[in-house]
Amino acid sequence: MIGRLNHVAIAVPDLQAAVAQYETTLGASVGAPQDEPDHGVTVVFIELPNTKIELLYPLGENSPIQGFLDKNPSGGIHHMCFEVEDIIAARDRLKGEGARVLGTGEPKIGAHGKPVLFLHPKDFNGTLIELEQV
Amino acid sequence: MIGRLNHVAIAVPDLQAAVAQYETTLGASVGAPQDEPDHGVTVVFIELPNTKIELLYPLGENSPIQGFLDKNPSGGIHHMCFEVEDIIAARDRLKGEGARVLGTGEPKIGAHGKPVLFLHPKDFNGTLIELEQV
Repeated sequence: MIGRLNHVAIAVPDLQAAVAQYETTLGASVGAPQDEPDHGVTVVFIELPNTKIELLYPLGENSPIQGFLDKNPSGGIHHMCFEVEDIIAARDRLKGEGARVLGTGEPKIGAHGKPVLFLHPKDFNGTLIELEQV
Repeated sequence: MIGRLNHVAIAVPDLQAAVAQYETTLGASVGAPQDEPDHGVTVVFIELPNTKIELLYPLGENSPIQGFLDKNPSGGIHHMCFEVEDIIAARDRLKGEGARVLGTGEPKIGAHGKPVLFLHPKDFNGTLIELEQV
């Protein structure tokens, strides 16, 4: 069912420093910061030959990643995102297998403009998994 | 400098349960467990179309991931691995940029039989980065 690893998302406490680490120290191809006010984050994409790293930095009040940074002040890997062809079919299969879908269970439009769902970390070895329909 | 994302490694407290989550619940292609006594882990590779997930489970006494599981009893993402063409050149560039290489600074032969180095998580947003020469 799951397809490509679309991205690994890393919450960072200092976006400018994180950009410099990936661009200068690791020599990767780093995009421009994009504010996503509807999602409470500023994102920077790092393009690797086969996938992306997504740096996440809080934007505005009530950013969904502020709590993560409060618990992990140095930052850390926040989630990984797998591509699926049909997010409703994926959700129904997951629920049938007993996995918990976060929120209402209805897909939302994610930061990339595509339908996404998140799965409960306790069902997947403490990792937060995003599914994105591509 | 960094190339492909070779794998994302996840430390898991119950290997059989983790295999079932990826194989049955997420419908991914999951390999057979491989004991790596020299590295103190049993690994299972999950093949995605563009990269791999590596499940890590402690093997024997003094497994390097036991401490991680003690701190994260549900498991969690342990590290991510980027490919480099020349690990000595990569190390020297990183040290020149002030990044800390773990251990002696000399590459070791990793679980895939190739030279690897690990970078200090505090220099990279709380994420442990492995570099592998491919």
